[in-house]
Amino acid sequence: MKPFLSGVVITLFIALVAFPNLRVSAAPAAGANAETLRDLEAEFMKAAAEHGSQGYMSYYAADAVELPNGADILQGKDAIAKTMGFLDQKDNHLTWTPVYADMAASGDLGYTYGTYVFTSRDKNGNPIEEHGKYVSIWKKQKDGSWKVVLDMGNSSPEHKAQ
Amino acid sequence: MKPFLSGVVITLFIALVAFPNLRVSAAPAAGANAETLRDLEAEFMKAAAEHGSQGYMSYYAADAVELPNGADILQGKDAIAKTMGFLDQKDNHLTWTPVYADMAASGDLGYTYGTYVFTSRDKNGNPIEEHGKYVSIWKKQKDGSWKVVLDMGNSSPEHKAQ
Repeated sequence: MKPFLSGVVITLFIALVAFPNLRVSAAPAAGANAETLRDLEAEFMKAAAEHGSQGYMSYYAADAVELPNGADILQGKDAIAKTMGFLDQKDNHLTWTPVYADMAASGDLGYTYGTYVFTSRDKNGNPIEEHGKYVSIWKKQKDGSWKVVLDMGNSSPEHKAQ
Repeated sequence: MKPFLSGVVITLFIALVAFPNLRVSAAPAAGANAETLRDLEAEFMKAAAEHGSQGYMSYYAADAVELPNGADILQGKDAIAKTMGFLDQKDNHLTWTPVYADMAASGDLGYTYGTYVFTSRDKNGNPIEEHGKYVSIWKKQKDGSWKVVLDMGNSSPEHKAQ
């Protein structure tokens, strides 16, 4: 082996031995940022509007947790799904508006928070409207997809219907 | 320059030109992980127990948001601090227990969630106890310190006092 090539090979060898976790990144990791989360929130809400609880739950990770107001912690997508059937009733509509989104530098974990409005009808058919706030924590899954790993909501002061 | 050394230098030069964002990491970035957040939660609670609202607020970032149950979003540490004076009343005690903590791979953003208990006395001096849940999102600040950037709470079903 020529001395020049020996230098190349030995340098690379030393680099690999000295830094076993060597990572070469020519762009920000994964490219995901706060805008990614805002886009996901829009898709998430569209899925819920079009496909009810199944669309809604399709954005939850298998190991997601829900922290519902007035109830105990729900661990796991299956347990959460059992409480989301109300999204399939035709008078019920849940919409939300992110106020802010932030993402870790590594592009694998982020969150959004915002406000939601739940509209429905009471037993007399009169429209009702509930206002609240939420935080959703999003995590990149092993298959590259993004899922909600934690969702929490609480109530906001009553706003008069228009 | 000897050919061997030329090989070393040129290899390193090519690596730097080809991969301008080359990062060498022999350990997880920044070293912060879920355990870091559990330790922070313990310090945070100790500060609140010993120094009331000032201790509590010392763990909030300047641009933190609070999503209080039954109230509107509070933007900024100053706005939040105005609502935390209840922690300075001698009969009021807030304790919390993290259930889970997770951290981004980059070690700059993470969260904890768990349960809290707020104990106080009613106007007749009888002990009262409120149970709830919380999520706290922690972010590494520019000065290297860790602060809460978002905190949200809601209520849990009433538990009988012992």
